[in-house]
Amino acid sequence: METQKSIPSLILFLLLLFTNSFALQIPKVHTREPCRRLVYYFHDIIYNGQNSKNATAAIVGAPAWANKTILAGQNHFGDLVVFDDPITLDNNLHSAPIGRAQGFYIYDKKDVFTAWLGFSFVFNSTDLKGSLNFAGADPLMNKTRDVSVIGGTGDFLMARGVATLMTDAFEGEVYFRLRVDVKLGMTNNI
Amino acid sequence: METQKSIPSLILFLLLLFTNSFALQIPKVHTREPCRRLVYYFHDIIYNGQNSKNATAAIVGAPAWANKTILAGQNHFGDLVVFDDPITLDNNLHSAPIGRAQGFYIYDKKDVFTAWLGFSFVFNSTDLKGSLNFAGADPLMNKTRDVSVIGGTGDFLMARGVATLMTDAFEGEVYFRLRVDVKLGMTNNI
Amino acid sequence: METQKSIPSLILFLLLLFTNSFALQIPKVHTREPCRRLVYYFHDIIYNGQNSKNATAAIVGAPAWANKTILAGQNHFGDLVVFDDPITLDNNLHSAPIGRAQGFYIYDKKDVFTAWLGFSFVFNSTDLKGSLNFAGADPLMNKTRDVSVIGGTGDFLMARGVATLMTDAFEGEVYFRLRVDVKLGMTNNI
Repeated sequence: METQKSIPSLILFLLLLFTNSFALQIPKVHTREPCRRLVYYFHDIIYNGQNSKNATAAIVGAPAWANKTILAGQNHFGDLVVFDDPITLDNNLHSAPIGRAQGFYIYDKKDVFTAWLGFSFVFNSTDLKGSLNFAGADPLMNKTRDVSVIGGTGDFLMARGVATLMTDAFEGEVYFRLRVDVKLGMTNNI
Repeated sequence: METQKSIPSLILFLLLLFTNSFALQIPKVHTREPCRRLVYYFHDIIYNGQNSKNATAAIVGAPAWANKTILAGQNHFGDLVVFDDPITLDNNLHSAPIGRAQGFYIYDKKDVFTAWLGFSFVFNSTDLKGSLNFAGADPLMNKTRDVSVIGGTGDFLMARGVATLMTDAFEGEVYFRLRVDVKLGMTNNI
Repeated sequence: METQKSIPSLILFLLLLFTNSFALQIPKVHTREPCRRLVYYFHDIIYNGQNSKNATAAIVGAPAWANKTILAGQNHFGDLVVFDDPITLDNNLHSAPIGRAQGFYIYDKKDVFTAWLGFSFVFNSTDLKGSLNFAGADPLMNKTRDVSVIGGTGDFLMARGVATLMTDAFEGEVYFRLRVDVKLGMTNNI
């Protein structure tokens, strides 16, 4: 009698055990909450022939009709810019940089500001060592735009995710500041 | 007696439950069927000094021995081309574009046509919003060649996979059309 | 009586079964041992105006203050170099190449040698077919530095991981040799 009563409870217990263990250890496939989130700013000062001391970026490729000290007409189509920009935790250019944003952008559209980005965030402090690598299209006139985290090293080993870029400020065609909201470890949409 | 008979069935039941649940929820590791497949065409018209209205691409970097209106000798080695090309569902340049292919290619070999590609497919319609990012070597003389999907955003959040490129048509050194067969969500070979 | 004794063993048996099956089939999340490891060398000979026969790389973009036959001052800041370099199994430039390293680097910092890399290892032998794609920051003055494996095709389908670069030798500003230790299939740090 005792035994016969206990068998349904045993099934229930094992089912619960199974279900719970499973739920704890297998990530849900359709959640999109990131595991880790980082918000940074970076600051780009483009060389214009007169600011070589402060410049953090320079035009190194340009189309046939342009030169390398003035961003080209037609929405800078064809300008390739290389940069080594300070990363800060707030929106102040003069805050102590916590790393460098290094890479390039290349304006790729004639009728509107749009660029293609390939760059890294490089960290080398006692708190944070390693890099995050990014690539993707940057339709600059959109308030926010997403690029992919294509990998990471060190503290960001094998990182994946998305970074949302927002132009936080700009001054003429020399200075701009980007706010970057990095969301790592998200699950996919496929 | 009743109880003793039921125990083997219980084991069997739980084993089946376990096995089935497991099989349903854990992807098999060596399957290579993509979860999602997309076939598109994109159309590249390189600026040649005379076609600025129609051109969708321009040479913006060139080696010391070349210029930016004619693709360089030695299989265009060293030419960096930036593009913003229409994507269509069929092979007709004049079909309504469903998105833009934006990025660059850079010819990287002296003795045969070969390029390195970094680009995105950018979609912004009611049906499809987001981007797919690609990178990889493109040995143009091979009938098909594979580049990597290195990430995605929006409807393609965190996409991974492979894109098979095929030169579908070309006219002199000004126009070419690529067929792209994107296979997303494949499992790996490592 | 018999039945009552067997129930605890049944629970134990099922628990063990569950635990073991689980352990065998789900990879541990925090292990960082790569599944596959490859060590290669590649050899870069930069065009300097006189070595066009041997050169495997050329400057194709440069800042306003520089040209394309001599690497620029200020730690080559702004120079974009495209390459098609032989990959060898040992550190001898004249060993039979087993593939090609193809892509670009772009010096991106004024006060120290640092570059941003986008490139592929391309294999097309009977033993090995496919490609590995890489991107990331390369602070050249560090003894070792890591870039990301951002994807792979063919035998490296969907590869992910990290490649550790080391400058193995250099001669003036014309030749350098990199040792690359590719670690694939690592788990992440996020």
